[in-house]
Amino acid sequence: MGRAPRILELFYDVLSPYSWLGFEVTRGSHGGSGLQGPVQIPTSLEYEAAIAACFNGWDHKRQWSGFPSLRTSCPLSTNCLYSPLPGNKPLAMVPRKGQYMFKEIPLLKQLFQVPISVPRDFFGESVKKGSVNAMRFLTAVSMEQPEMLEKVSRELWMRVWSRDEDITESQNILAAAEKAGMSTAQAQHFLEKIPTEPVKNKLRETTEAACKYGAFGLPTTVAHVDGKTYMLFGSDRMELLAYLLGEKWMGPVPPTLNARL
Amino acid sequence: MGRAPRILELFYDVLSPYSWLGFEVTRGSHGGSGLQGPVQIPTSLEYEAAIAACFNGWDHKRQWSGFPSLRTSCPLSTNCLYSPLPGNKPLAMVPRKGQYMFKEIPLLKQLFQVPISVPRDFFGESVKKGSVNAMRFLTAVSMEQPEMLEKVSRELWMRVWSRDEDITESQNILAAAEKAGMSTAQAQHFLEKIPTEPVKNKLRETTEAACKYGAFGLPTTVAHVDGKTYMLFGSDRMELLAYLLGEKWMGPVPPTLNARL
Repeated sequence: MGRAPRILELFYDVLSPYSWLGFEVTRGSHGGSGLQGPVQIPTSLEYEAAIAACFNGWDHKRQWSGFPSLRTSCPLSTNCLYSPLPGNKPLAMVPRKGQYMFKEIPLLKQLFQVPISVPRDFFGESVKKGSVNAMRFLTAVSMEQPEMLEKVSRELWMRVWSRDEDITESQNILAAAEKAGMSTAQAQHFLEKIPTEPVKNKLRETTEAACKYGAFGLPTTVAHVDGKTYMLFGSDRMELLAYLLGEKWMGPVPPTLNARL
Repeated sequence: MGRAPRILELFYDVLSPYSWLGFEVTRGSHGGSGLQGPVQIPTSLEYEAAIAACFNGWDHKRQWSGFPSLRTSCPLSTNCLYSPLPGNKPLAMVPRKGQYMFKEIPLLKQLFQVPISVPRDFFGESVKKGSVNAMRFLTAVSMEQPEMLEKVSRELWMRVWSRDEDITESQNILAAAEKAGMSTAQAQHFLEKIPTEPVKNKLRETTEAACKYGAFGLPTTVAHVDGKTYMLFGSDRMELLAYLLGEKWMGPVPPTLNARL
């Protein structure tokens, strides 16, 4: 009898920089990773697109009206920049955390070897504009052409978190999809799916699935190993994830694979 | 000319479990660490005791009256369980984060090999009781007998975060100090320093120093390397810290040292 299959689920949002780091580590696409490194492991990756309520809880409160149990607060709001509770104002200390993020990301860029760069006005423009259409586009892709999800997700991150470009306008979502290898016709097809109920419902369901696992921010990784389910928060839990999978952690970019690049 | 000295400062609180993990990794006391592992590095460790305002902001608001600039909010409150802003109630999502912590700590216990265990009623009893006297005791120790700071800190963590024992009563602080190797007379001497102005001021100054570095939670590690200063938050930034120090990260307990235990 073979070993039971191990499944990882990664809940992410393309507005979340730490989601990008977690995505690249689990994906191993920039030179392998401790999780998919020298040792082949029977782990299948199921990417699920989850909207980052942490970025939307305040200004986009109405988005949550579809969640009966979540009407008074956004489901992923512990790290919310805009508190979801009515009457709250952004916490006095939030600027400290934002400042920290801006200083830390250039360091993580080097450590993770992901071309991440803080947008000029992230907490203003980017957060305000949100990512709901981009996430619905990804949801549509995941429903019909899941093999493209990884590349399109990455191109959306490349836009907002590497080149400081918009991901809310239709032509910009199209541009990311085409850069990922889609034809214009394909990309246009998915764009037309954005306002449809099946896509909107699917994104809500995915977010609710994250909530049911206990998620409170993104990325959230859920590992199903040997009959147990572990929920881990953050791009900084990848070493713990490797431990749970029984794999040797070799860093976000293992030296041996790195040397081969 | 030799290399410029590299200095690490670790701001911690003995009520903070993640502080304990960060403390043991930088200290390397449970079998070495990636930071003090096989390669000797010219890093001096300066432990500083900082009160975890994140645990005290709400119920112990008056403690902050000594900080002119901080009257309306606790300085380390982003992860505050009890929001420091008047009129706020604990965030609806906090239970999710608490539940996550309870599930994660047993996993981190294995990964870090620190005998950490969640107290029975941490968010109730432990948080409510706070740690200000324990932290003032440590401050007094750091002022007169800094070589004892590490051991006494660990024995306080062992009480609250391993054996679920009190650290607020005088006899319990004494017991931790004696277990760390202090004579009863010495421990009594430091106990009497708790309510004195120099000790109270020193703890305030240390906390303010953390704030000046931009701290918003504990542990906060400040690394001074090659003329630059880096502030890192959390016990999960130790791999990044190793990277900044130019050291190979070998995990919280490097395999070679681990095998020797």
